Amino acid sequence: MTENFGLFEWPVRVYFEDVDSGGIVYYASYLKFMERARTEWLRFRGIDVAVLASKHRILFAVKSIKLDYRRPARLSDALRVSVVLQSIRRASIDLSQEITYDNNAICSGSLRLACLNADTLRPRRLPELITHEFQSNAL
Amino acid sequence: MTENFGLFEWPVRVYFEDVDSGGIVYYASYLKFMERARTEWLRFRGIDVAVLASKHRILFAVKSIKLDYRRPARLSDALRVSVVLQSIRRASIDLSQEITYDNNAICSGSLRLACLNADTLRPRRLPELITHEFQSNAL
Amino acid sequence: MTENFGLFEWPVRVYFEDVDSGGIVYYASYLKFMERARTEWLRFRGIDVAVLASKHRILFAVKSIKLDYRRPARLSDALRVSVVLQSIRRASIDLSQEITYDNNAICSGSLRLACLNADTLRPRRLPELITHEFQSNAL
Amino acid sequence: MTENFGLFEWPVRVYFEDVDSGGIVYYASYLKFMERARTEWLRFRGIDVAVLASKHRILFAVKSIKLDYRRPARLSDALRVSVVLQSIRRASIDLSQEITYDNNAICSGSLRLACLNADTLRPRRLPELITHEFQSNAL
Repeated sequence: MTENFGLFEWPVRVYFEDVDSGGIVYYASYLKFMERARTEWLRFRGIDVAVLASKHRILFAVKSIKLDYRRPARLSDALRVSVVLQSIRRASIDLSQEITYDNNAICSGSLRLACLNADTLRPRRLPELITHEFQSNAL
Repeated sequence: MTENFGLFEWPVRVYFEDVDSGGIVYYASYLKFMERARTEWLRFRGIDVAVLASKHRILFAVKSIKLDYRRPARLSDALRVSVVLQSIRRASIDLSQEITYDNNAICSGSLRLACLNADTLRPRRLPELITHEFQSNAL
Repeated sequence: MTENFGLFEWPVRVYFEDVDSGGIVYYASYLKFMERARTEWLRFRGIDVAVLASKHRILFAVKSIKLDYRRPARLSDALRVSVVLQSIRRASIDLSQEITYDNNAICSGSLRLACLNADTLRPRRLPELITHEFQSNAL
Repeated sequence: MTENFGLFEWPVRVYFEDVDSGGIVYYASYLKFMERARTEWLRFRGIDVAVLASKHRILFAVKSIKLDYRRPARLSDALRVSVVLQSIRRASIDLSQEITYDNNAICSGSLRLACLNADTLRPRRLPELITHEFQSNAL
């Protein structure tokens, strides 16, 4: 819930819904955790994804993702999920995200998010409220 | 995938996504299984929920549910999920559903589904394509 | 994160993972929210469900649940989820839970949780660390 | 549900649980679909993941994944999910998987699965029942 030197972090607790019968976090759950952190990172900067969708008709959709699962997280673990902006392009942004537990890397990823028109689901230019926010607060 | 004497059944396999660290199916997963069976029960009768939403602007939302968890299901279990229509009202329908494994009851429930206008999310009268389908095929 | 006069509340934010194409929270997601609140209610009282499972070999499984869905929650809503202990029995406890948004009821429920031996999955007497905690802090 | 020339395919229907408020499949849901297909691919070859865990104390955990989201899938879409074995190593296997709708690519991925001891969660050599199955049925 802090952003220093371009690093934003969001806390996530592991609940029963997140783990599988191996006793470890299910591999798709980490994508949920990363999406929560991205949503809060935007909120921290004054951008609400619900308003973005309903008022501006804009969605961000993951275009590609690369994940390395480094060690398993378990029930009750208090994780931290980071978001670091890597680059802004005309109609997409690149991020890196890392999930840690007790300063140990659990899962590291890099993603490209495409900006879509919410009605047509076609790519569109990033809105000014996004580019302005990120350019005036270079990370 | 059969409907006899008013009983419709749909098969569901238990995967890693459905179980928690206790090795048993997570309690919210049964609601997903029941919703899959309801969706297929409608499809079996020629009603596609996506068309219902996009073309007719109609959603069915669960208004109330009562569930009894009778015994745990586990990873790899081949479950069967039934749907039985109990009654049709002006703007809602009542169903009972049961999940079984090897003829043993896993989870039994009764639900009321409200018919909603997809734009306003307010209750609306059941559409004719629903009432006609169910009245002419009394279950 | 407060407990006054027997009412414990936990905040839950609605993310993309929780809503469906109707734009409202998927009906099974409320069960996840309620389970998160129950887990934090136990943690608030010094009981960690992971320790309960690994060290004491105890699981709590929902035996029955009754839910009324009162109005839909939406993406980005900041919900509150309450837990109120209703009664303690030999091998189970009864709770009521309510999810609210801006003081409006979203979903109300009552549940019975059975105490299980984590190895056999059979009912067992509530452990003393649970009964003692609740009896000495009558709610 | 067929395997020809090394291509195994499994059908997956998109339900309300899988889509988000943008009306498209949530990005983590594709990982669930891919895991269902992998599980059925093993079952097709006589290997049940539940038996693998309980009897042989073996888990397969995703070590890394790379996904390209090519176009969105929607509610009610009947998807196909493929599994192709790329290589077998001492303690891991590499797969590629593709999700298609109506012969159009929805999501393509490549994964490395690590073979773990279910008790210690540490890497272990692939069991003979796996290596034998794949070597005698070269794909």
